[in-house]
Amino acid sequence: MQKDIILYGLGAMGRRIARLVIERGHQIVGAIDLDPAKKGTSLHDLLEMPEARELTISDDAEAVLAAHSGAVVLQATASFLHQVAGAIETCLSHGHDVISIAEEMTFPEAADADLAARLDMVAKAHGRRVLGTGVNPGFAMDMLVLALTVPCGRVDHIRAIRTNDLSDFGPSVLQSQGVGLSEAEFTKALAAGTVVGHVGFAQSVALIAGHLGWRIDRVEETRMPILSRVARETPWLTIAPGQVAGCLHCITGYADGREVLRLEHPQQIRPEAEDVKTSDRIVITGDQTLDMVLSPEIGGGAGTAAAAVNAVAYLHRANPGLVHLTDLPLTSPRAPQPQEQEKV
Amino acid sequence: MQKDIILYGLGAMGRRIARLVIERGHQIVGAIDLDPAKKGTSLHDLLEMPEARELTISDDAEAVLAAHSGAVVLQATASFLHQVAGAIETCLSHGHDVISIAEEMTFPEAADADLAARLDMVAKAHGRRVLGTGVNPGFAMDMLVLALTVPCGRVDHIRAIRTNDLSDFGPSVLQSQGVGLSEAEFTKALAAGTVVGHVGFAQSVALIAGHLGWRIDRVEETRMPILSRVARETPWLTIAPGQVAGCLHCITGYADGREVLRLEHPQQIRPEAEDVKTSDRIVITGDQTLDMVLSPEIGGGAGTAAAAVNAVAYLHRANPGLVHLTDLPLTSPRAPQPQEQEKV
Repeated sequence: MQKDIILYGLGAMGRRIARLVIERGHQIVGAIDLDPAKKGTSLHDLLEMPEARELTISDDAEAVLAAHSGAVVLQATASFLHQVAGAIETCLSHGHDVISIAEEMTFPEAADADLAARLDMVAKAHGRRVLGTGVNPGFAMDMLVLALTVPCGRVDHIRAIRTNDLSDFGPSVLQSQGVGLSEAEFTKALAAGTVVGHVGFAQSVALIAGHLGWRIDRVEETRMPILSRVARETPWLTIAPGQVAGCLHCITGYADGREVLRLEHPQQIRPEAEDVKTSDRIVITGDQTLDMVLSPEIGGGAGTAAAAVNAVAYLHRANPGLVHLTDLPLTSPRAPQPQEQEKV
Repeated sequence: MQKDIILYGLGAMGRRIARLVIERGHQIVGAIDLDPAKKGTSLHDLLEMPEARELTISDDAEAVLAAHSGAVVLQATASFLHQVAGAIETCLSHGHDVISIAEEMTFPEAADADLAARLDMVAKAHGRRVLGTGVNPGFAMDMLVLALTVPCGRVDHIRAIRTNDLSDFGPSVLQSQGVGLSEAEFTKALAAGTVVGHVGFAQSVALIAGHLGWRIDRVEETRMPILSRVARETPWLTIAPGQVAGCLHCITGYADGREVLRLEHPQQIRPEAEDVKTSDRIVITGDQTLDMVLSPEIGGGAGTAAAAVNAVAYLHRANPGLVHLTDLPLTSPRAPQPQEQEKV
């Protein structure tokens, strides 16, 4: 079913989403970006894609949202719930559905239960739906984990390890993982909150526990520097031996005092420099043991854009309100159907 | 949510299902098996499980089904649609939901569109649901494949290879794969229809194509003997070098003249005798390549029982009628919730 789409945020991820939206045959009816450098430019020029419309990018969200109704807003602006909730509420109030790639939106209750309840209420009041999705959180360490539990009679323990490569990312992501710092600087930056590690563990834990009906009563998180033994270089920076190449961020969940869940996420630049292969590995232990390896790892950027655009065709299957991925069928990429196109 | 369950079929798979139903806290209110040797015996004795009720197994399906209403019937009797459709219709007519592990029930339209439409009509007329599930078809070569497409912007080709071990199976399964035959006997048995290979490829192709919106316009199937170079032994039979150890059954699907799907299923006894490791492997090629390996393979028996019992908690989310796995959220094993138990 082809839909009207409003793009909200046209950074690197927003542009990936935009290109896929066009390839999929949806119609882009609005484009919002608050960056003054983008305001007034055309989507056609920004995307460098012949099929893209000569649509003017606007920084006036209210005006773009008010000019349409019943569209799906694809939001790619920020990671944290408090950064995106206001804009989402505005979208819902103007009668649009919203799909956000903000990490905390995959399970916003885990970030701020009151704010999540407010979004749910506003969405229901306007008969619209709001969903968060992405590769991590949203797929690699949660929905794919849950997929593997389908043939399990009993799940005693879940372990997921996502070993990925940060080399393609720019300075802000690298800084958030402490890349280029000394070990001492990493420790200080962690305490100061400038190094945060992965955003989304709380969401993955909540998605898994919610779907399996588990009560996680305690989690423990650790963030350790990955110190490089060799020099490593990306387009953005070079690190010397002994400097931080990335961050190993882990979370362990306990139920009734027993460890039931462990998610490990070593993120670094150029892992191959020390013969580290990137991969997604999931081990489910229960009445049977399932040991899955996907190598190389699922692409974070391409995968998140795809997850967001794929979800457009499934959103209407959920009731109005705050929707979780676990409420929907698998949001696979759906080829446009001639008869579906005719309907619209 | 705890449910009333009627067991229909108490062979090896039915008993596995029964044990899991009891572990999960559902209530077994009826047990049907047409085998005269089981009639009149108690479920407690058959399952050798202290928690099992002293419920008498009956061969009078009508009487058991009429004595209750609103239960979920778990059917584990046969593989083919025409063998199970009559019993399913009777269950639906008595006001029960049905979950069947008959391979063809995961997508019955692919076996007989008229018969599938009839089941859909009867289910809707009685406001009930009927679902087919299992590991293969149902999970390893279809739902898990679809799960891996979620982060894909474009899927050009799908390949799934399930390399499993038949050693635990009894004579009827081994015969259906030609185990123990000579190469010439295998060829004859294929032509005679006594060797059938895998049952369910048509269903996996239909589940995948239906969910992705693909139009498969042609499929090709091949069934080749796996000839053993060594002697191999199972509890049921011993084969000499040169005899058939199993069947390599493949199906290839084409859309617009292009190969888009290939499923390969080498099934044999004692694969380790020739250093063959069992596994499930899935390769998705498109805007990214996802190469997944699960080794050893997902347990077919344990997994099918789990898939059937897990689905009980999700069936009510679908509209009445014939339900496909792709209509439901991931049917993960759901821990019983105290508040859910109180509701019932």
